[in-house]
Amino acid sequence: MKLSNRAYQVQESPIRKLMPYALEAKKRGIKIYHLNIGQPDIETPTVMIDAYKNYDEKVLGYGPSQGLEQYREGLAYYYNKLGIDVDADDIMVTVAGSEAILFSLIATCNQGDEIIIPEPFYTNYNGFATMAGVKIVPLTTYAENGFELPAADKIEALVTSKTKAILLCNPGNPTGAVYSKQELRQVVQVAKKHDLFVISDEVYREFVYDGLEHTSILSREGIEDRAIVVDSVSKRYSACGARVGCIVSKNKALMAAILKFAQARLCPATIDQIAANACLQLGDDYFEHVIKEYDKRRNIVFHELKEHPEIVCAKPGGAFYIFPKLPVKDAEKFIIWMLQEYNIDNETVMAAPACGFYATPGKGNNEIRIAYVLNEEALKKAMKILLTGLDIYREIESKQ
Amino acid sequence: MKLSNRAYQVQESPIRKLMPYALEAKKRGIKIYHLNIGQPDIETPTVMIDAYKNYDEKVLGYGPSQGLEQYREGLAYYYNKLGIDVDADDIMVTVAGSEAILFSLIATCNQGDEIIIPEPFYTNYNGFATMAGVKIVPLTTYAENGFELPAADKIEALVTSKTKAILLCNPGNPTGAVYSKQELRQVVQVAKKHDLFVISDEVYREFVYDGLEHTSILSREGIEDRAIVVDSVSKRYSACGARVGCIVSKNKALMAAILKFAQARLCPATIDQIAANACLQLGDDYFEHVIKEYDKRRNIVFHELKEHPEIVCAKPGGAFYIFPKLPVKDAEKFIIWMLQEYNIDNETVMAAPACGFYATPGKGNNEIRIAYVLNEEALKKAMKILLTGLDIYREIESKQ
Repeated sequence: MKLSNRAYQVQESPIRKLMPYALEAKKRGIKIYHLNIGQPDIETPTVMIDAYKNYDEKVLGYGPSQGLEQYREGLAYYYNKLGIDVDADDIMVTVAGSEAILFSLIATCNQGDEIIIPEPFYTNYNGFATMAGVKIVPLTTYAENGFELPAADKIEALVTSKTKAILLCNPGNPTGAVYSKQELRQVVQVAKKHDLFVISDEVYREFVYDGLEHTSILSREGIEDRAIVVDSVSKRYSACGARVGCIVSKNKALMAAILKFAQARLCPATIDQIAANACLQLGDDYFEHVIKEYDKRRNIVFHELKEHPEIVCAKPGGAFYIFPKLPVKDAEKFIIWMLQEYNIDNETVMAAPACGFYATPGKGNNEIRIAYVLNEEALKKAMKILLTGLDIYREIESKQ
Repeated sequence: MKLSNRAYQVQESPIRKLMPYALEAKKRGIKIYHLNIGQPDIETPTVMIDAYKNYDEKVLGYGPSQGLEQYREGLAYYYNKLGIDVDADDIMVTVAGSEAILFSLIATCNQGDEIIIPEPFYTNYNGFATMAGVKIVPLTTYAENGFELPAADKIEALVTSKTKAILLCNPGNPTGAVYSKQELRQVVQVAKKHDLFVISDEVYREFVYDGLEHTSILSREGIEDRAIVVDSVSKRYSACGARVGCIVSKNKALMAAILKFAQARLCPATIDQIAANACLQLGDDYFEHVIKEYDKRRNIVFHELKEHPEIVCAKPGGAFYIFPKLPVKDAEKFIIWMLQEYNIDNETVMAAPACGFYATPGKGNNEIRIAYVLNEEALKKAMKILLTGLDIYREIESKQ
């Protein structure tokens, strides 16, 4: 039986594809520090878990396709507090950020159309692009300058008659880059000049460090009808398993089209939305506490990496990832070796090999993504194992 | 800003598009009996609600992309009890039946490929087909013979070089038709002869009446590698808001491809899966009770419709819908009139106009779908209002 072309083409998750090696290691009694996946260990807020416990309807029914009205109103208030001028009708609740990305792509792009994405980028954009039949055109950014966005002319050079949107992740997964107002200004300029949408994945909005300020694409003037924000509670409230996200846009025609796609799948899960809504009552102190914790971890990981003279690594300004360039030829082989061959006292480390985060072939072969989602002590141990393993592996690799 | 072609083409849900008229009627103080949407009033099992209440993890984390292992094993046991020989690896948990349909289409069809679907069909297949760029080729069935499947040669006449699958809904939404082994044999024959997949939406599996037996496509011999079952807990356990479904297939290559699509969206909601899993402990007595209740309702609705000499109506063998042909020119106008102009003691009825359930233009103009998802008393009242309204509307229509 022949499957569709997209079934053969769709990328296997580079974050998850090495899991069989991890399972095999676990069977041998090896403990693995998982730095490969953005699954925070921060506790989900009690107020959210309590919302599940307090559900007391007799019939767990469908909600509206655009999401529960009360939740959409709560979200509007959340964005307003951030200085983003939207109301409930500009918001559509989605099945996590994932569905928000898929809907954004299919509503803006025809089959064969192109979107420009700074690479390295969140690898699952590949899967949604394949599903939607959209071609990703990479705009390469570099560890050496903190993955900053190239100037407008570099972006423009990639625009063709098929380009429909620029997709940003800000703060960036996997780079941790936080785009400045100046960087965003250039994107806005290109979008206006070439009549493009700007899809901005802002799920890590709160996680910025060193006094940096996050700038939402929705706060930029003059592109109200071009800006589409993709959002999610997964990282914000350590609630990856809730699968609640949203799309925010002031483009009424776009939101009407997305509502029609959303009607086909009826609605997002009802109780998970109620639980997500409960999180909106959390005050700033919640984020202060969580950001402080991530910041501490970021400093640990960055410090350890910088100690190594042959690792190139930009200090990330946001999110909870760090994306170092290692002195190896093939980072994927290194990760597999760590899982198969290496341990200290029966403990080893798993990170995500980086080539799956690039669309340009060959890019990222010597890079990895580290998610600093473990506590301080675990992270220190994991970094020690990773870096001692690295030096041993380099010797083995040099002899091959 | 120009949107994508599919954004303009995607069908507005014919089930939900008349909601503004309903909201407007409610504002005028009118009570509406909702027969338009398959939202059961049957209580969600306590064991399921309790599963939400009993969640006690500290971090609401991602689950596996293919679904929680324990749940997949429970599902395998559920299918085994039905005589369907599958194991956990043949099952992928999805975000309700909706995602199962989307994944089935994108994994089997290229852009521009065709699937044959008996019409009238579940209208949201249109939305997923538009998202996937797949063309629906309708195989018309008729109220007059209970919407039975046409013979193999009629199906074959629709096969082209672009046909990739036949999609059945069995028991049928919106028709209530339950396909016999003989009808399925013809589908299997065509699928084998023309190398097609058979996607079978069996979310109403348990709801069959009059001693009929449901036959799953997975139980048919000789098409193990062609059969794809789409399933969901929504109707089975009155849990439409949980958004938990699955895909079942013994075609390993297909399941591997679908896993890659599933990895892009990470996982289905974690707690909802735990809650769905809890339902698997319900015994046969649960379904006996629910089926008895739906059967009673079916008889009420069918009896009322049959009393009207000019309504054509097949007694449905399954699901919880009935699909009568009314003596009006335009059933959608009739439904809108019921919402805008008609009431008995400030109560009126909303049903789903049928043309959105057909792909053939002009078909279904005088048909509606009634979902018998209200209790006996409410249903009797609703049918009285609907049928008295119908006779008044006919007079008005005849004068236009």
